[in-house]
Amino acid sequence: MATLVLLRHGESDWNQKNLFTGWVDVDLTDKGVAEGRRGGELLIEHDLLPDVVHTSLLRRAIRTGQLALDVADRHWIPVRRSWRLNERHYGALQGKDKAQVRDEFGDEQFMLWRRSYDTPPPPLDDADEYSQAGDPRYADLLETLPRTECLQDVVGRMLPYWFDAIVPDLRRHGVVLVAAHGNSLRALIKHLDGMSDEAVVSLNVPTGIPLHYDLDDATLRPTRPGTYLDPDAAAAAIEAVANQGRSAAGG
Amino acid sequence: MATLVLLRHGESDWNQKNLFTGWVDVDLTDKGVAEGRRGGELLIEHDLLPDVVHTSLLRRAIRTGQLALDVADRHWIPVRRSWRLNERHYGALQGKDKAQVRDEFGDEQFMLWRRSYDTPPPPLDDADEYSQAGDPRYADLLETLPRTECLQDVVGRMLPYWFDAIVPDLRRHGVVLVAAHGNSLRALIKHLDGMSDEAVVSLNVPTGIPLHYDLDDATLRPTRPGTYLDPDAAAAAIEAVANQGRSAAGG
Repeated sequence: MATLVLLRHGESDWNQKNLFTGWVDVDLTDKGVAEGRRGGELLIEHDLLPDVVHTSLLRRAIRTGQLALDVADRHWIPVRRSWRLNERHYGALQGKDKAQVRDEFGDEQFMLWRRSYDTPPPPLDDADEYSQAGDPRYADLLETLPRTECLQDVVGRMLPYWFDAIVPDLRRHGVVLVAAHGNSLRALIKHLDGMSDEAVVSLNVPTGIPLHYDLDDATLRPTRPGTYLDPDAAAAAIEAVANQGRSAAGG
Repeated sequence: MATLVLLRHGESDWNQKNLFTGWVDVDLTDKGVAEGRRGGELLIEHDLLPDVVHTSLLRRAIRTGQLALDVADRHWIPVRRSWRLNERHYGALQGKDKAQVRDEFGDEQFMLWRRSYDTPPPPLDDADEYSQAGDPRYADLLETLPRTECLQDVVGRMLPYWFDAIVPDLRRHGVVLVAAHGNSLRALIKHLDGMSDEAVVSLNVPTGIPLHYDLDDATLRPTRPGTYLDPDAAAAAIEAVANQGRSAAGG
């Protein structure tokens, strides 16, 4: 049996300020730091000590993983990183206030950009202050560097990393931790659970609560549904999102 | 030209308490955290932004590297770790008070254990509370797990990692950072500078101040002597050690 643990990063500066973030490399808030540490405590409580960690190239996921592993006394395990685990690129919305975008473009367009499977926002200009066009960490992407993405795009660029890097680690190691983002994890869960394009639209992943999958050794498919290590907190977070009538699917 | 930057971890809890540390996995003090961050500022000031980092499996070196890279906005670079970069294993001295050991065994024996090239302390019993015999991070070492080491032993187990892991990265990448320990760095500097067994005994590496080497592309030997990025602070730290009449060569 292979064991996979997914961990969405804790609250970031821009979550708190209600700005679209995407690939902008903002840090965790104090609450986000506490969420990362709590994630590590949950790993200990459930005896799910990671043997290897995969992260995006973004500070909020990298730090969340470091904080959780430090608490779990697993700071020394191998680390692998890839832009393919990054948050969805939010295109021209990056750095914009969510409420202002909703006011300017209306509810329907706003929800399409945020929650539809295949409608990306307008692309971000390379000259924009929130562009990653000149960022050295993405220099090897050449002309494939995204300027905007919908969730379908994230699925497309995340899956090659799943098959090439995470699956081999799942076959070699006991427990694999993936510290990433709302949308890269939604893309992965869609694949694992065989969700339709329609179903994934309403999937929410709470921050900082490890999600545990047991996978069949041969197929690397779940042998039972994934479980949050703090189910009550996860249910409350998902319920809170539903009650607000707005999405917490990342950004 | 290949560029190598060596960084000894900042002050640890046991540096402060004057205990022999070795492979015991203690954390940084607040001062040690500040040293790590200052190391990152020095990397920025000297435009030496690492493209890859190598660390030991010990928290104080891992965290020092993370802190420096976070400040230098290089948190996203590839990470490689090995027990071969660990501090010298201090054998039966691990966890013991340095002043008490000196009182009990006398100055001569104390200095032999601390500073001779080839005299290891007595081995640490596997049942000792400060033994690493049951530590999962060293499970693959099997019967080669050290129970004590002299500096000569550190040179012997560090050099395979230099040739197998660091040299290939120096040929591939622009700037390679090694975040490690007093004695694993002394072992590496001995090799780089071609120091004799006698000369390395009086070499001290200050904490938290990056040491910069330019290496010839073909031979991976220094093209000029290594330079500390804060030469005044490095000289002061080395001078302070000399004036105290005791060693800061790690522990």
